[in-house]
Amino acid sequence: MKFCSACGASVDYKVPEDDSRERAVCSNCGAIHYQNPKVVTGTLPIWGDQVLLCKRAIEPRRGYWTLPAGYMENGETAETGGARETMEEANAAVENPSLYTVFSLPHISQVYMFFKADLVGPTYSSGSESLEVALFSEHEIPWDELAFPVVNKTLEHYFADRANNAFPVHYENLAFRRRSG
Amino acid sequence: MKFCSACGASVDYKVPEDDSRERAVCSNCGAIHYQNPKVVTGTLPIWGDQVLLCKRAIEPRRGYWTLPAGYMENGETAETGGARETMEEANAAVENPSLYTVFSLPHISQVYMFFKADLVGPTYSSGSESLEVALFSEHEIPWDELAFPVVNKTLEHYFADRANNAFPVHYENLAFRRRSG
Repeated sequence: MKFCSACGASVDYKVPEDDSRERAVCSNCGAIHYQNPKVVTGTLPIWGDQVLLCKRAIEPRRGYWTLPAGYMENGETAETGGARETMEEANAAVENPSLYTVFSLPHISQVYMFFKADLVGPTYSSGSESLEVALFSEHEIPWDELAFPVVNKTLEHYFADRANNAFPVHYENLAFRRRSG
Repeated sequence: MKFCSACGASVDYKVPEDDSRERAVCSNCGAIHYQNPKVVTGTLPIWGDQVLLCKRAIEPRRGYWTLPAGYMENGETAETGGARETMEEANAAVENPSLYTVFSLPHISQVYMFFKADLVGPTYSSGSESLEVALFSEHEIPWDELAFPVVNKTLEHYFADRANNAFPVHYENLAFRRRSG
């Protein structure tokens, strides 16, 4: 941020009074512009003993498999956002969302939330951000071709929890450790 | 947002290609400026059979009691942010944070996260945003003087769960219904 979004003048980076962090402060109107973490919300779509994954058509990690997810939008709930992303990326409708995994990713200032949800039907196809969409049984999961650690973690929890038929919410702080490849 | 934070030119509100929502798009450099929900993170600080509450010194809801919480900052984890807010508002150190309640507040584009945490000691005092800080047993909770529905909900869950000695994560979508008063 170099310019004030309220008046267009240049901003200075300084610590405002009663604050402890450097912020972008307008040199003209004094507006303080805060920058905060973003929420990425998605689903773990379930159909029988299978889960739905999307092969990414965009960077980062193009060609790798992911759970449908994306930035939460203003005015929506987290679960509505997750369902929206599932429709956008996989043309798939989900129901009965329940919060399942939550991750802090401080190195990229994101909070991830995945909702376990039921596919309304075995109906799906590639949205514009997906090369391919498919259902996978546990033994078919392409563990070495998953896009992000949050996807690995969510699937690992799911198959472990499914053995116990109990799906508590899992929270984890995932500092930077993106897989190579 | 009226001006581009990258180049200072005016922005137009329109739906970018491959998008479905109106965004602020720079009339000069074409930068798209997204606005997304903010995360508010806090703690439910526990000391024996008591919980710590702060009487707000600032609007909204000045004079009402709240759990310590505030906007999550870039570069921190949610639980670190909750502990930081607890120190800022109550000069109280917490340990062993575990995610406890999560709320979507779509009418104000926020996601709230509260971590149940142990006070390191019975040591606390008012930070600049608090008029008063105190420990409360269940029968002392000022239920009619709590600042926000997320505080009521978190305390209600806690005392109910404490009877069972099990503290699962609770997620809820809280559409607008701020208490009158």
